Amino acid sequence: MWMEMRRERKRKKGGDTVEDSSLDAFFYPSSVAIFGSFRRGAIAREILRNIVEGGFNGRVIPVNPKGGTVEVAGRRFRVRTRLEEPVDVAVIAVPAGVVPGLIDEIGSLIRGAVVISAGFSEVGNAALERELVEKAKKHGVRVIGPNCAGVFGVHGRFFGSFEVRVRPGGLALISQSGAFGGAALAMGNDERIGFSAFVSYGNASDLNESDFLEYFAEDENTRVIALYIEGVKDGRRFLRALRYAAERKPVVILKAGKSASGARAAASHTGSLAGSYEIYRAAFKQAGAIEVEEMEELFDAAKAFEMYPLAGKRVAVITNSGGPGVLATDKLERLGLEIAKLSEETVEELRSFLPPQCSVRNPIDLIADADYERYRRTIEIVCRDGNVDSLLVICVPPIFVPSEEVARAVVEAKCDKPVVVNFMAGELVRDGVELLERHGIKNFPTPERAARALMWLSGRQTF
Amino acid sequence: MWMEMRRERKRKKGGDTVEDSSLDAFFYPSSVAIFGSFRRGAIAREILRNIVEGGFNGRVIPVNPKGGTVEVAGRRFRVRTRLEEPVDVAVIAVPAGVVPGLIDEIGSLIRGAVVISAGFSEVGNAALERELVEKAKKHGVRVIGPNCAGVFGVHGRFFGSFEVRVRPGGLALISQSGAFGGAALAMGNDERIGFSAFVSYGNASDLNESDFLEYFAEDENTRVIALYIEGVKDGRRFLRALRYAAERKPVVILKAGKSASGARAAASHTGSLAGSYEIYRAAFKQAGAIEVEEMEELFDAAKAFEMYPLAGKRVAVITNSGGPGVLATDKLERLGLEIAKLSEETVEELRSFLPPQCSVRNPIDLIADADYERYRRTIEIVCRDGNVDSLLVICVPPIFVPSEEVARAVVEAKCDKPVVVNFMAGELVRDGVELLERHGIKNFPTPERAARALMWLSGRQTF
Repeated sequence: MWMEMRRERKRKKGGDTVEDSSLDAFFYPSSVAIFGSFRRGAIAREILRNIVEGGFNGRVIPVNPKGGTVEVAGRRFRVRTRLEEPVDVAVIAVPAGVVPGLIDEIGSLIRGAVVISAGFSEVGNAALERELVEKAKKHGVRVIGPNCAGVFGVHGRFFGSFEVRVRPGGLALISQSGAFGGAALAMGNDERIGFSAFVSYGNASDLNESDFLEYFAEDENTRVIALYIEGVKDGRRFLRALRYAAERKPVVILKAGKSASGARAAASHTGSLAGSYEIYRAAFKQAGAIEVEEMEELFDAAKAFEMYPLAGKRVAVITNSGGPGVLATDKLERLGLEIAKLSEETVEELRSFLPPQCSVRNPIDLIADADYERYRRTIEIVCRDGNVDSLLVICVPPIFVPSEEVARAVVEAKCDKPVVVNFMAGELVRDGVELLERHGIKNFPTPERAARALMWLSGRQTF
Repeated sequence: MWMEMRRERKRKKGGDTVEDSSLDAFFYPSSVAIFGSFRRGAIAREILRNIVEGGFNGRVIPVNPKGGTVEVAGRRFRVRTRLEEPVDVAVIAVPAGVVPGLIDEIGSLIRGAVVISAGFSEVGNAALERELVEKAKKHGVRVIGPNCAGVFGVHGRFFGSFEVRVRPGGLALISQSGAFGGAALAMGNDERIGFSAFVSYGNASDLNESDFLEYFAEDENTRVIALYIEGVKDGRRFLRALRYAAERKPVVILKAGKSASGARAAASHTGSLAGSYEIYRAAFKQAGAIEVEEMEELFDAAKAFEMYPLAGKRVAVITNSGGPGVLATDKLERLGLEIAKLSEETVEELRSFLPPQCSVRNPIDLIADADYERYRRTIEIVCRDGNVDSLLVICVPPIFVPSEEVARAVVEAKCDKPVVVNFMAGELVRDGVELLERHGIKNFPTPERAARALMWLSGRQTF
């Protein structure tokens, strides 16, 4: 059904976009065949399990010349000895040497192939990889990999990888490194990030970062694209694709191999020329992409952009504790944002109902006993101020009310400007943070990380 | 018993240190009286509960003129109408106006008073605060607060605060802001930090940051001191105390009010003059303290120093995944550390047993199927290399072995140099991380945060 919906959308939009519809076979397939060993612990079995447990609705066909049966997640499958019917995508985890022959054999039955198998150009077997690509081209089959961790089409409930499954959301993660991708998915779960898709493209024998950028630029379930790269092969094409994508949605990039030693290590690791970092940096900037410096920032930026496309730079800080309000203020200024100067009307209106110990100048300190009403009214009043572009709402564990009360105030306050929240810390505000999450408001665990989120929303970078 | 042990130690050390033993009454008391309301939800009751649940071994005496009884954590206490026997410390949470009179009344029975009550100089009541201090001085009583969150002496099992209890360890946290302190304790629990002590000193009417710096410099349970300050009143004294402490153990400082807006907010919030940040910065540097820029960094630095006093700057990176190894390398170089050049002997020794696909140049990539043996031997070989000062060991979720295997290799490898680890991510490496923690090895959740930990250990700063 997803496939139909997607195709429908494409037709309506007309033919003026780049040719990306072929990738639907990978991210919204209606059928999949998995090739490999289905013994306990084997990769193909893990992928089969992930697909079944993930709730994939289409046909699932395990294939191994030895046949037999396999049971995963309470479902028993007959293992076919060969593929005999057309499927959208084949996920292949067989020894490298037999991959080209397999692709040739099933090429007329599949649209796309995800080749998990390693043992190609990354270990010097460039000829074998060329053969793989030639066989695929012959049949018009697109290839992801080889030497990759696979793909997730989260909204199509297709988890075609052995990596940990994730919750649905707006982030498409494109990772050159499979291991980075896997760790990032797990961290994303910890950070409560929602994903639209994940792709680890390994050796990029056919499809590469540029194809995925163009594809996710058009994918309606994707609100923000995160890209981890070490190096690209075709710089010109990459710049074009990056610009195309960044014009349509936020693209956040983590580039590995920035330092001299790092670039050397990346070159030996991916076989791709990392090239001068300065060229990449200039390209990211020119294309309008947002570069982050650290892994943690990739998530923070993605979280921010999953909520809002952008925000102005004049920030109002609202807090129930002075110290964290000051830390947020320090960081905002350091990052080039402005502590909004509240209008006299706003100050008066706040003064009219807040206790006298509260500070009504930005940062606005609602003090320790701030409750639902104090937070909600303050947010609404500040939000109406023409001098304010966005709000940073801080809540340390309130002593006199549950943290959910404050969370509910944030959720229910009428405000049409970006609101970034920092509830801290840990167990003590868990209920509040969960209530926020249920309403699509993502929490940033420290004042500084919340400030940085606002920086990205304002189109700035840390470094 | 703790008191006896502590006094013993002091005697043995002789009298050449600053006069700090009086503060033992706060952090290693043998008896405590709590003053305030013991109704459900009242502050004094929460503190009583924390003291009892925390396993305090000494006498605990709740006091309220109304008398009655109070039951917390399954123990029933008679509430005395007045204090009639000597105790080490009084924790006071009664209305501000009656605090000076109370101090005068019980002054001859107590050594120290922790005044939780607010309503003093922070709201303009400077006279009341002066009166409090005068009454205390008259009886030779030292005062923490008023307007503070209280104290923890974790190894004395004394949790004299309403804040969340923490596990024992080496970090003494000194916080000018009570709310920051509370949030920091909760975050510390999340980060699995072990604490020796916590003190929120509020208005600093008597004891202030300098007293605590000097005290924890001598406290044998404290391995690292973390300080959150907005401003200090006596700069000269502070610099002296800071230098004294930093000469003895690592002191990590988070200064709030660095920016113009932040300094203004801090001034209105604590009533202390924040002063020029540049002066603070110079003072921190001159004293040999480590300044961090963000709340999260305070913990990362504390974690690093809880494990090691220092480390040289030539780092060897060992990883089972190329991408994260490259990210760590990038960050190390950017932070001014060196990617150690391994000796030819080391390279040969590694080459002799590692699979050919592994990279034996730093960063050393043990690839995805790295197991216990591969990690342990590599760590031991690299550790013996004279060109290597410290090790950064990365583990992304291993596919073929449980993460505990890798953790066990880190724990059991014979290596006398600092080893900083980055196991990621989330659920997938939880068992490994827990095994590490049980052996006192703290995990850093991203390659970049691990790299930053090594930077602090080498005496450098981020900014």
